[in-house]
Amino acid sequence: QGTRDHAPAHAALRDRLLAAVVACFKRHGAAAIDTPVLELRETLMGKYGEDAKLIYELQDQGGELLALRYDLTVPFARYLAMNKITNMKRYHVAKVYRRDNPATTRGRYREFYQCDFDIAGWFDPMIPDAECLKIVHEILSDLHLGDFLIKVNDRRILNGVFAVCGIPESKFITTCSAVDKLDKMPWEEVRSEMVGEKGLSPEAADHIGEYVQLHGGLDLIERLLQDPKLSQNKLAKEGLGDMKLLFEYLTLFGITGKISFDLSLARGLDYYTGVIFEAVLLQQENDHVEDPVSVGSVAGGGRYDGLVGMFDPKRRKVPCVGVSIGIERIFSILEQRVKASGEKVRTTETQVLVATPQKHLLTARLKLISELWDAGIKAEMLYKKDPKLLKQLQYCENMGIPLAAIVGEQELTDGVVKLRDVATREEVRMPFYIKFQKC
Amino acid sequence: QGTRDHAPAHAALRDRLLAAVVACFKRHGAAAIDTPVLELRETLMGKYGEDAKLIYELQDQGGELLALRYDLTVPFARYLAMNKITNMKRYHVAKVYRRDNPATTRGRYREFYQCDFDIAGWFDPMIPDAECLKIVHEILSDLHLGDFLIKVNDRRILNGVFAVCGIPESKFITTCSAVDKLDKMPWEEVRSEMVGEKGLSPEAADHIGEYVQLHGGLDLIERLLQDPKLSQNKLAKEGLGDMKLLFEYLTLFGITGKISFDLSLARGLDYYTGVIFEAVLLQQENDHVEDPVSVGSVAGGGRYDGLVGMFDPKRRKVPCVGVSIGIERIFSILEQRVKASGEKVRTTETQVLVATPQKHLLTARLKLISELWDAGIKAEMLYKKDPKLLKQLQYCENMGIPLAAIVGEQELTDGVVKLRDVATREEVRMPFYIKFQKC
Repeated sequence: QGTRDHAPAHAALRDRLLAAVVACFKRHGAAAIDTPVLELRETLMGKYGEDAKLIYELQDQGGELLALRYDLTVPFARYLAMNKITNMKRYHVAKVYRRDNPATTRGRYREFYQCDFDIAGWFDPMIPDAECLKIVHEILSDLHLGDFLIKVNDRRILNGVFAVCGIPESKFITTCSAVDKLDKMPWEEVRSEMVGEKGLSPEAADHIGEYVQLHGGLDLIERLLQDPKLSQNKLAKEGLGDMKLLFEYLTLFGITGKISFDLSLARGLDYYTGVIFEAVLLQQENDHVEDPVSVGSVAGGGRYDGLVGMFDPKRRKVPCVGVSIGIERIFSILEQRVKASGEKVRTTETQVLVATPQKHLLTARLKLISELWDAGIKAEMLYKKDPKLLKQLQYCENMGIPLAAIVGEQELTDGVVKLRDVATREEVRMPFYIKFQKC
Repeated sequence: QGTRDHAPAHAALRDRLLAAVVACFKRHGAAAIDTPVLELRETLMGKYGEDAKLIYELQDQGGELLALRYDLTVPFARYLAMNKITNMKRYHVAKVYRRDNPATTRGRYREFYQCDFDIAGWFDPMIPDAECLKIVHEILSDLHLGDFLIKVNDRRILNGVFAVCGIPESKFITTCSAVDKLDKMPWEEVRSEMVGEKGLSPEAADHIGEYVQLHGGLDLIERLLQDPKLSQNKLAKEGLGDMKLLFEYLTLFGITGKISFDLSLARGLDYYTGVIFEAVLLQQENDHVEDPVSVGSVAGGGRYDGLVGMFDPKRRKVPCVGVSIGIERIFSILEQRVKASGEKVRTTETQVLVATPQKHLLTARLKLISELWDAGIKAEMLYKKDPKLLKQLQYCENMGIPLAAIVGEQELTDGVVKLRDVATREEVRMPFYIKFQKC
């Protein structure tokens, strides 16, 4: 339940999608790494907050206590610390596992692909962060998913806001997770959760509300930098200064049109320490789709400067920033679009079917196909001794094979092969000598 | 333990290797499918004989009882039965899991890739089987692994041999697993295991010994077809007849030079019902390798006509034949060869580094690299505001980046970019207008 087989049409479409994402990661100079699906349980514990209950654990059959990886970020941080790597740009495309309630219509599964790109190392501020946003912009543009918006915020700004609103530091994380719900529920409900469950004062909640409902661009950053309270808060000031720098870089990249500085963005995970971002599609389906999918965010990420240090015996930090592409959600949109368009996804790449119009020509077909394979040509034949020509041509049509290479008795005598364009039925004779043997 | 991270140089080499294997599978018209890493425990039980103890089981955290897949064949058979598919040619490249004693120097891990190609369906005899052997031949040739031999046998012939030697049918499987050890120990030891542990009579064991030490080609098949006892056994006769047909087809493919009909080949798994085969490297290392790897078999497979029926409620059979490429063993050979040659594996595909010779040119670099990315060019820059030119060129040399695109103040004024060949230090100036901004 919540896992699935990928049938050929699925797998072919998914491979195309992954290829586009990987092409972008490679364009940005990332190297591939791969880590095991199994991690030590202790590696995963204490990294995901409340979500730790969704981790799949392996049975104790002797040996180490193991669990299935929950994401690709924690294994990456563990990998950097274990190998004492302080500088790396890597991508990783692999499956992760969550004991979640699957919502399969929305592209949510218990086993699903993640596509991550991360930059680790001590660098000048906001240059790698800006590149991560550029990558999201490139991928969402390349895939023609329709209009999108990338919301950006900074954990330091959020924490600064909480501080100036009089929230004690011990309640930052829980307040953060309340703010995180603003994309799903109206402010009033979030406010009553803050006052009720989280125990904030109504005044503090209202004060937070004034901030977290703001969104804009450079103008908003400038305004907040002038804000009498926020500008007094060290963290907020740092965050806002970096946000301004980020917007300058994004302007050079020419992508600010799709970026929104949004103070309501909080992101669920504990380990973020700086910039955070999330991309959402603005129009999630085109008119042809009968059953529109609600997809939510299709990419997200941020800066996590403390995570690698948690795995280092000496707590040495390696700053990191990264992005994860929500490939499963994007896949379910593309799949619906393909379905709606009636387009047939080819599941193989076969270029030519080796066919015969008469009986007793298996030998000739085997010889011909063998030479085609050896020449690097993608070729198939039916696994029958004497298939009917019609069946062979129908197979081409069903599978989208563009050409048939036909050898009949006449062709063998003449030392040629008849090459037939399956769609147009045009035929040309090509020299091809096969030693004749009846079989 | 027994799992590993794949560092960039590993991952890059492995990706190349997998790409070569997948290219061959696609050349033969296979479609990709993907199945979950998690299978129901009951799906895996009773399929692997004694090896079932090596299956990783998940903890019971509520919901179904799960296990990690042990190979790709059983999930494929389960997939066919579940979806009532009776005709399919598919490949699957994915990781499988075994709680084995890892022998990591020989490329044996607890988490490892399998690359499988299988043909399912009711076809004329030996045509798909011959294609599987052709695939093994193509892949091992393409990878230039040195000389190799593909041993072929048939479970029906083995069972026929056991029958004419007076072994009761109840002891076929256990006798088979004794024979399977002939590639690792001499006949005398196998014989004493048969007589001791397995309880065969010394006469029966000696009789079996006369057969299972035979190997050859068409001549041997013909001889056994004339064997007064074997030719009376229905199973053996069927198997030998098909083996003859197989060799005819392999002759047409021109690959019999590397095929040996070998009666000692038994293969461990229970589910084989017809042709079985296994490829071994004859010279496993070249002279440059200091620490030669013993690799054993690098590919194997066979016909399993009964497995799909085990998953079908009405026990409907779908005949299958397939091959699995031992990619991890091949990888450890290639890796040692690369090490020995001193060749540096590039881990990224970056074509050009955007560099500056002076300070205060971050803006120009960001503009230029953004345009390169948008033009689909694989480009990197150092994440520093003012890196030294020497550092930038050293980065190119370390990472194998062939070109540097240099923008200095003069270039900006002239509206050009200096393109430098890192290896030859040749430079050309190319028109490239960037609006100048100090940063």
